Amino acid sequence: MLDLMVRWEPGTRSRLQAAAMDLFVRHGFEQTTAAEIAAEVGLSERTFFRHFVDKREVLFDGQHLLEEAFLDGVAAAEPDASPMRTIESALDAAAAFFSDERRSWSVLRQTIIDANPPLQERELLKLAGVARVMASALRDRGVPADAAALAAESGLTVFGVAFQAWVSPGETRSFRAVVHDVLATLGAVVADA
Amino acid sequence: MLDLMVRWEPGTRSRLQAAAMDLFVRHGFEQTTAAEIAAEVGLSERTFFRHFVDKREVLFDGQHLLEEAFLDGVAAAEPDASPMRTIESALDAAAAFFSDERRSWSVLRQTIIDANPPLQERELLKLAGVARVMASALRDRGVPADAAALAAESGLTVFGVAFQAWVSPGETRSFRAVVHDVLATLGAVVADA
Repeated sequence: MLDLMVRWEPGTRSRLQAAAMDLFVRHGFEQTTAAEIAAEVGLSERTFFRHFVDKREVLFDGQHLLEEAFLDGVAAAEPDASPMRTIESALDAAAAFFSDERRSWSVLRQTIIDANPPLQERELLKLAGVARVMASALRDRGVPADAAALAAESGLTVFGVAFQAWVSPGETRSFRAVVHDVLATLGAVVADA
Repeated sequence: MLDLMVRWEPGTRSRLQAAAMDLFVRHGFEQTTAAEIAAEVGLSERTFFRHFVDKREVLFDGQHLLEEAFLDGVAAAEPDASPMRTIESALDAAAAFFSDERRSWSVLRQTIIDANPPLQERELLKLAGVARVMASALRDRGVPADAAALAAESGLTVFGVAFQAWVSPGETRSFRAVVHDVLATLGAVVADA
């Protein structure tokens, strides 16, 4: 116990999270129990559940922060910014969330999610929820409903494509740079109709 | 309308479907059992399950036809068509599926789905699956992965926004006309960045 306490990760939550990710990758998400995660760092299952509602929360606990970042980005856009410029501001705010230091965590998380269809569904539904919230924020800024939905969902499409690229092997661009490249590709694809 | 369908539709499957929709709207999807649906048209629960895997299939049995229509539309596009033009062809093929005769069924179905979050999730996941299949079809035509994903997902975004408009009260445009209006709005929204 003393040995564990002097390790570089001081927080119990962080230690549980690191152990969980390790087990998810090695044994699979379904096959890993909360008790096993806790045991890995010398703690009880009860302690695990004081920090996380369930083992899924290890992977999804940052989602509300991401949603907040998107909405902060919408709020930060100039009042007369076009819907797509407003979405670009939201994507820039989200990009601040995905720093280069975070990339290896995101790659690990994506590996776990890619191996588990129910987690993929959960991720998809979460992002669809963010799109709905952003469309609503655009409507509050006076954007007509159709344009708001199209801009918000295009923004989440760009986010998804950029994220996949950002966690790909060998990718070195910052998340923000990838987002702007994908935005440019979207512009070219939609214009060439 | 439903009464007429029951009287004039000779097929057992159609009678079960009409009875199911009627009960879903009146009592809610969760509250309706397969036995109640069958009883409504004087049949046994066993007969219901010979026609449908579960009561959800009443609402979702057309989905594979829709997916096929999308893919037929991709295949029908000129070999050198741009990704977005190819998606437009897919949307036109899907539009043939949503004839004016089908609109009242679609409105009813949407009413049931709007009242039930798990059905909304299922719908969303189904459409995400169609987007994946379309992106794959575009890659098979030589479209780079990012452009393929962006065009396919934009296509499904347009489909979703167009569908919501098409089933709205008072909407009289054909599905195809709505799709083209939404495509034009997407072009304008994305260009104004």
